[in-house]
Amino acid sequence: MNLTILGCHSATPRTTAHPTSQILEIRGHLFLIDCGEGTQVQLRRYKVKFSRIRHVFISHLHGDHFFGLVGLISTFRLLGREAELNIYGPKGIKEAITLQLKLGKSWTNYPLYFHELDSNEPQVLFEDEKVSVTTVPLDHRVYTNGFLFREKPGERKLNIDAARKANVDLSYYSKLKQGHDVVNNDGKIVANRDVTLDPEPPRSYAFCSDTAYCPEIVPQLKDITALYHESTFLEEHHHLCETTKHSTAKEAAVIAKKANAGTLILGHYSGRYGDLNLFREEAQEIFNNVELAEDGKVFSF
Amino acid sequence: MNLTILGCHSATPRTTAHPTSQILEIRGHLFLIDCGEGTQVQLRRYKVKFSRIRHVFISHLHGDHFFGLVGLISTFRLLGREAELNIYGPKGIKEAITLQLKLGKSWTNYPLYFHELDSNEPQVLFEDEKVSVTTVPLDHRVYTNGFLFREKPGERKLNIDAARKANVDLSYYSKLKQGHDVVNNDGKIVANRDVTLDPEPPRSYAFCSDTAYCPEIVPQLKDITALYHESTFLEEHHHLCETTKHSTAKEAAVIAKKANAGTLILGHYSGRYGDLNLFREEAQEIFNNVELAEDGKVFSF
Repeated sequence: MNLTILGCHSATPRTTAHPTSQILEIRGHLFLIDCGEGTQVQLRRYKVKFSRIRHVFISHLHGDHFFGLVGLISTFRLLGREAELNIYGPKGIKEAITLQLKLGKSWTNYPLYFHELDSNEPQVLFEDEKVSVTTVPLDHRVYTNGFLFREKPGERKLNIDAARKANVDLSYYSKLKQGHDVVNNDGKIVANRDVTLDPEPPRSYAFCSDTAYCPEIVPQLKDITALYHESTFLEEHHHLCETTKHSTAKEAAVIAKKANAGTLILGHYSGRYGDLNLFREEAQEIFNNVELAEDGKVFSF
Repeated sequence: MNLTILGCHSATPRTTAHPTSQILEIRGHLFLIDCGEGTQVQLRRYKVKFSRIRHVFISHLHGDHFFGLVGLISTFRLLGREAELNIYGPKGIKEAITLQLKLGKSWTNYPLYFHELDSNEPQVLFEDEKVSVTTVPLDHRVYTNGFLFREKPGERKLNIDAARKANVDLSYYSKLKQGHDVVNNDGKIVANRDVTLDPEPPRSYAFCSDTAYCPEIVPQLKDITALYHESTFLEEHHHLCETTKHSTAKEAAVIAKKANAGTLILGHYSGRYGDLNLFREEAQEIFNNVELAEDGKVFSF
């Protein structure tokens, strides 16, 4: 599971700070999360293979999270894309995008599907045999969802030496990986646990931005491998959280601690702070394993 | 008159090539012409003072000419802008922008006026005592206008030595600058031409992008100081002009020659060409004074 930060700063794009966008590579999928202005250039800068993106998740319709989407959709068309593209985002996103394509007489040649969201309950947006993607309803000035990406448990690992020793025929190996007991060449039952090992525990990632402090999301995030949680402000500016519905680094850390997260990644920093280490220091007073998102940084879990 | 090229490449933004946008500084005005994705970052990169932009002219509603507009409008709001902003562009532009602001509950606090265009005849969009801005109807796949910026003739220049010698009272100097004859301290009429000099000839600039070869625009551009004319292709790819409704460097030069332009500036290059000098060479076979637009380049006239 690799997370590439394309942009992690709040508000307006600058020459050195890009608005929110991330690429999550998980079990062969390349999921794009949010798409601020300039995301298509960031994708090129960090050499992400455009064509592998099939699913785009938009948290909310503030510009710093979605003004780059229409340009990316248009570029896919100019590059001759044929594969379908799925956009998941708040109600209204379809009209905002298609109106612009219509005005430019620039309909996509590839299938473009919008999945509009308006529920305040967690919803499964995507699921296959390897992963699931679920909304995490957040608390912001406009309708906003985070997204929870979960790997499904993989197959059990074969302990080849033990299987050979137990005289299990090769043809039973895939059945063993699936967790079944089998009968060996001597006609005896071989217990699965004696010849297989537990698979890697499934990993999970949650993207929570933008949001006010929202402990209601904790049960959904329980034992998560990695949590990206916005920290627009430091505690010294906590009063700004009330009107803007953002969080502080400390509040992000409280969520990570309550959820028993493996790693907390901070981001969506307000432009007023020169030293991002202040965010880490504030969060580490509550929760130990804190990382700072930075444009271009790749996290592997 | 200073022209700053913020972006001059066709189609999609890349790390090294930005889509169309220009700043024209003329008689104290700072006019923004087109606004491809990433324009607000280019404005910062080239240290253009945001707040001085009061008028934005959008040629047409293809993404590489206007996808950066909604972000710029939003950023003005975040920066606390109070001055009004005028947007001139094809019909539909108001809905495309306001829909996105509405979805983000991000109405501007400053007055935002849209001037929607649908005429196929030249129209005066802006005029004061110093300059006028007129549409130049172009021929593209969607409704498109170029823009013609004309300085108005300035006041005549006082030949102070001559005026003193002719015994003209100081109080008549401003009347002289306005072109009138005056009576001197001896009661004699002093002819204006004897004590004043011609002002600098008014300069003019036309932006013509995107367009197929369109000689109908020549009379409007007659004797223009500087002409920016798109040259998406070279003649070797002339066949692509028919379907895409773009021009070659040669065609741009023919327009410049017919219009008796002072300088031709080429731009909107297709990404297929590695060496932009080929554009200059092709145009110079027809017209001598050819410049190549490049991101960040400033032309002074």
